[in-house]
Amino acid sequence: MPVAGLDELRTKLAEVFDVRAAVGLLNWDQEVNMPPKAADARGQQLGTLSSIAHRLFTDRSIGELLKRLYGPHGLAADEAKLVSETAYDYGRATKLPESFVARFAEATSRGFQSWIRAKKASDFKLFRPELETLVELCRERAELMGYEDSPYNALLEDYERGLRVEALRPMFATLAQRQSALIARIVKSPKQADLAWLDQKWDTSKQWDFTLRLLKDMGYDFDAGRQDKAEHPFTSEFDLFDVRVTTHVYEDNLFAGMMASLHEGGHALYEQGLRVEDRRTPLGQAVSLGIHESQSRMWENLVGQSRAFWSHYGEVLRGFFPEEMKSVTPDQLYRSVNHVEPTLRRLEADECTYNLHIILRFEIEVDLIEGRLKTAEVPERWAALMKQYLGLDVPDDAQGCLQDVHWSHGAFGYFPTYTLGNVYGAQLFEQIQRDLPALWEQIGQGNFCALLSWLREKVHRVGRRKLPAEIVRDATGKDPGVEPYLRYLETKYGALYGL
Amino acid sequence: MPVAGLDELRTKLAEVFDVRAAVGLLNWDQEVNMPPKAADARGQQLGTLSSIAHRLFTDRSIGELLKRLYGPHGLAADEAKLVSETAYDYGRATKLPESFVARFAEATSRGFQSWIRAKKASDFKLFRPELETLVELCRERAELMGYEDSPYNALLEDYERGLRVEALRPMFATLAQRQSALIARIVKSPKQADLAWLDQKWDTSKQWDFTLRLLKDMGYDFDAGRQDKAEHPFTSEFDLFDVRVTTHVYEDNLFAGMMASLHEGGHALYEQGLRVEDRRTPLGQAVSLGIHESQSRMWENLVGQSRAFWSHYGEVLRGFFPEEMKSVTPDQLYRSVNHVEPTLRRLEADECTYNLHIILRFEIEVDLIEGRLKTAEVPERWAALMKQYLGLDVPDDAQGCLQDVHWSHGAFGYFPTYTLGNVYGAQLFEQIQRDLPALWEQIGQGNFCALLSWLREKVHRVGRRKLPAEIVRDATGKDPGVEPYLRYLETKYGALYGL
Repeated sequence: MPVAGLDELRTKLAEVFDVRAAVGLLNWDQEVNMPPKAADARGQQLGTLSSIAHRLFTDRSIGELLKRLYGPHGLAADEAKLVSETAYDYGRATKLPESFVARFAEATSRGFQSWIRAKKASDFKLFRPELETLVELCRERAELMGYEDSPYNALLEDYERGLRVEALRPMFATLAQRQSALIARIVKSPKQADLAWLDQKWDTSKQWDFTLRLLKDMGYDFDAGRQDKAEHPFTSEFDLFDVRVTTHVYEDNLFAGMMASLHEGGHALYEQGLRVEDRRTPLGQAVSLGIHESQSRMWENLVGQSRAFWSHYGEVLRGFFPEEMKSVTPDQLYRSVNHVEPTLRRLEADECTYNLHIILRFEIEVDLIEGRLKTAEVPERWAALMKQYLGLDVPDDAQGCLQDVHWSHGAFGYFPTYTLGNVYGAQLFEQIQRDLPALWEQIGQGNFCALLSWLREKVHRVGRRKLPAEIVRDATGKDPGVEPYLRYLETKYGALYGL
Repeated sequence: MPVAGLDELRTKLAEVFDVRAAVGLLNWDQEVNMPPKAADARGQQLGTLSSIAHRLFTDRSIGELLKRLYGPHGLAADEAKLVSETAYDYGRATKLPESFVARFAEATSRGFQSWIRAKKASDFKLFRPELETLVELCRERAELMGYEDSPYNALLEDYERGLRVEALRPMFATLAQRQSALIARIVKSPKQADLAWLDQKWDTSKQWDFTLRLLKDMGYDFDAGRQDKAEHPFTSEFDLFDVRVTTHVYEDNLFAGMMASLHEGGHALYEQGLRVEDRRTPLGQAVSLGIHESQSRMWENLVGQSRAFWSHYGEVLRGFFPEEMKSVTPDQLYRSVNHVEPTLRRLEADECTYNLHIILRFEIEVDLIEGRLKTAEVPERWAALMKQYLGLDVPDDAQGCLQDVHWSHGAFGYFPTYTLGNVYGAQLFEQIQRDLPALWEQIGQGNFCALLSWLREKVHRVGRRKLPAEIVRDATGKDPGVEPYLRYLETKYGALYGL
């Protein structure tokens, strides 16, 4: 017997999700297609649509429906979960006035355009006023949402439920200490990869075709998505049958494009793997950015930088570039893919240094939000931390604090989820190797069916039925922790560099 | 002194226009980018967003503001016009219930997908059920809107204010009679163009580049627009700084792509030429499809098929295809562009036969809407009229009644505006030639500045300040009539075919 009000709630939610899908498309188009002079109008459109979505979702009628439906009502488990997840979102959304949502959306649209210009000119000063506005809006947001201890906790909650800055600090301390120690040994190792062969022109249209091949083999459904080019690769979804990835290909960088496609492909498989019956409801959403990132980083690194993967795709790549690769041995290729070297850019950072890029951003973000750092001091602070963690000098803003799009979107509290993704991903992947004894053999044949099935069942199809830590615990039998990731790094790179 | 309520009205209108822009983008994306499996979700999104736009615009608060603002209030002329045009739209929109708008939007989304499949399979039966639904919805729409004499008049009003089927019949009769007579003489003329040279492979990427060159020279602003590929070329605008055209290029057809780009470019220049200060209001809209089409047909035919145009662009085109065109003389090229021959497809129809394609569709539409024709009978009726007007046998549905996208969008009453466009365009262009004595010399240099300035002043910047017939009358000193178009055809083709 259907419970009164549930259908009405579903209808109202569907409308909200449709407006959010339009916001998603306006954003995707802004980064992929939009002509430059349209920026102001697009900002207004995004402001209006975000505000409408917010207004529809925070309508008192939804609150009343939730009140009627909450508690023991003879709801099926999924129905009860639908109600409680909606109530969680409703509780948070109603803390934000519509005017704030519109101001935030317009500021991020202007922020993005400003960031594009500033990055092009490699001049942080061009972006600073918009960054200032965005930081202030995020602090205002934290006050509106409420928090304990640090306003940064209010922002973290948006991306990873229950995550707190006090929990991140010791975790990041362990990672920083063990990864720094590992890097120090690697840099001194005599067993360095020979990278000279990479210094050639790599035809970008062949690279593009190779990325399409990878996505297809992974199981990405091109009838329910597409790949385009964007400055900063990202994944957008407007429905589980419309999940789009972006990548970039550079003539002087063979690996950047394929790694971006593997990464975004991992995100996209998660979205394409949600349940049809959960569409246009909170249950049909990814549970958190940390879990999302566990998927992208798993495909990009744990799979895409493995020896088995390259035993197969090395030969596929050679088919695209027979002349350029004629003298490269499989071992040299594998070592090149896994070359460790502190670099300025997070996006091209290797597995051993990646988390240090995150920890650097985390420290800047916390200090900006807690008011200990002025926006004008960001480049200087960036340079100091880059020196401290990676021993590098930052030559200009484009390669420094302007390299990432996130702040221009007002996304403070987002970066830590990348490291959480590494941590969750490694823990899940240890379990996958136990559950699928033929895994490496299959990967060595470019066959990812069993892996994808495992992820579909344990992660993708869950949607928001479980919290992030529950997903990891139910799949692996253990609470999330940093040991699997550090074990993975130390084992793999210990062998590679003969430590 | 600002009049109370005007700012409030502007704010509410801006919100409506932003939602409509999102609907526009969802539609554009559907035809340019969207993966096939997303069709259902997109239909729902379009339904929801259209319904929201309708709900916002028909909100009682707008009606109350209009009542307060209507009449003598010390409003400036533009402000008064803004109010009266909004009142006109409001009066029509409030006749349509929100549920009808949502049903219509969903039906057109499904209709479009079904049309794509049917056209691919060249099987009208696959599209018939959706066409049936759309015809019924259009009849329902006519009843809701109200009409005199014919329900088709209610539909015409949407595309060309004040146009009536009773006015079209005699106009179409004159055109059909005079154009048929002209064609009969042309077909028998011994002075036929030598088209053998066209039967080659024409590299589509070179064609694409040529279309970009044409758009640029016309004055199309690529910083406020872009060109993409689509099955059926169209123009979309989400703001006057975001006006996008589409075209198609075929390896076996040198002229189709460039003519489509000139045509859509003409539409786009109109939209890019609206006034910034009219943005997000009815004044910042094109006044009618007939005037819109006068712009596209002027660029495509009156300019783009002229001897002066080809004296310049023939050499530009030769630069793209030096081998393929090495034996083609300028006169042969000009005659090839203007080759007259009854064909099955409207989109490739020449100037002399084009209106007959429209009259055929008009007759089918009127009979469908007035209930004298069943949807199942459309292919048969199409074939009969094609035989009657153009003497051609229709071999299959793809080349027959499935060739156009319009019906799949539920756009009945749209086709006649193409012929109105020819008629308005020729009348305006006669005046332009009087006003700009150096016109042909400039066109012969690929210089369209003076022409575009004339159009900007007399047509584009007017927006909805005047009705279609007023625009023509104010620019030319005469009421709109068919004589200028017939005079143009008979003079040009009389000379070409030595009649």
